[in-house]
Amino acid sequence: MRLRNIPGAEDMLRQFPTYVDNPSQYKGKWSDCFGNNNPIHVEIGSGKGRFINTLAARFPSINFIAIELKAEVLYRTAQRTEQKEIPNLKLVQFDAFKITELFEQEELDRIYLNFSDPWPKKRHSKRRLTHFSFLRQYRAVLKQDGEIHVKTDNQHLFEFSLNQFANELFQLRHITFDLHSSEQAATNVMTEYEERFSNRGQHIFRTEALCKPIAPTN
Amino acid sequence: MRLRNIPGAEDMLRQFPTYVDNPSQYKGKWSDCFGNNNPIHVEIGSGKGRFINTLAARFPSINFIAIELKAEVLYRTAQRTEQKEIPNLKLVQFDAFKITELFEQEELDRIYLNFSDPWPKKRHSKRRLTHFSFLRQYRAVLKQDGEIHVKTDNQHLFEFSLNQFANELFQLRHITFDLHSSEQAATNVMTEYEERFSNRGQHIFRTEALCKPIAPTN
Repeated sequence: MRLRNIPGAEDMLRQFPTYVDNPSQYKGKWSDCFGNNNPIHVEIGSGKGRFINTLAARFPSINFIAIELKAEVLYRTAQRTEQKEIPNLKLVQFDAFKITELFEQEELDRIYLNFSDPWPKKRHSKRRLTHFSFLRQYRAVLKQDGEIHVKTDNQHLFEFSLNQFANELFQLRHITFDLHSSEQAATNVMTEYEERFSNRGQHIFRTEALCKPIAPTN
Repeated sequence: MRLRNIPGAEDMLRQFPTYVDNPSQYKGKWSDCFGNNNPIHVEIGSGKGRFINTLAARFPSINFIAIELKAEVLYRTAQRTEQKEIPNLKLVQFDAFKITELFEQEELDRIYLNFSDPWPKKRHSKRRLTHFSFLRQYRAVLKQDGEIHVKTDNQHLFEFSLNQFANELFQLRHITFDLHSSEQAATNVMTEYEERFSNRGQHIFRTEALCKPIAPTN
């Protein structure tokens, strides 16, 4: 998400009870941070925050963490919390590429990637959040039966993501080329971006990728 | 492919030296039929035959078998052979659903499914050549490192196929939503149908599915 620079966004974030300062202190100890052993689901790139706030309200026995690289974007996510204490939601400013500095092996149950930047130029492909270099880091912090859920309106990013998952031996599931016409529509939680684009008739792609242990390819 | 009924198509097929009568006699013995131990690639649904004839000419050290359910369609495939003896091409009239009656375990190296009937109605999904009941039969006759190559212009069939492959723990590879703009275009052999549709600007979907041994999903 592109946003105007918000001066002092980091200081403003500290006003929100959901914001976690110096989050890598909780590596391997996020259960302590939440005060329970519930499963942990992470959204990387939480934008305006509707998705993760909705999920946090709907699933009180799951712990949610929103990760954003830029303070000004995380501030938008935070604004939706209305400065309330939400016991199962934490907001973290961090570089997803360093996710192994934030979580211990098998600390996470699920990662959501919603409408990530497609980085359309080939020379920028390494920046796509489903590039294999990211997928390897996600696998390192996800449980063995952990999942990555991807939504995008960008066909090229979707095609790229399917191939990266397949090459990295993730097991794909529930692949759909038109989420809102699929059986998954009933349980789908829309992001702000998703609502805007699907209202224009744009199809939304979605897949789940499972971290199942897969035999070596010889 | 829908065709007018051709009376006596079966008798006419027997005129072609590439045609194999009573093909199940060769189960486990296709090497004898070809007179060599070269890899065997099968196309299920060979239509007018350009694809498999082109491949047979281009790859003389691979044995090709065209399988068609209907004699009148196989007759069209045969016509393209111009009644020549083609040492590495055989034509077979057979029901793909009974493919295990035609081939022994691990007898095949590759199966091609080109522009298969999409059977769009849900109640007909079992007839789609990528339905899991077919995939299990293909796996039974393919080698451990065998491959299934799928091309289609039908998005619903493609989406369905990706999910069926993934559910059956095939390893996907080279997924493309626009074959003719992809890196694979250079080596692609077009079918008659494909040329007609892509000339109209229709995108062609393609994937490869590998029979790699995959660990159980618990």
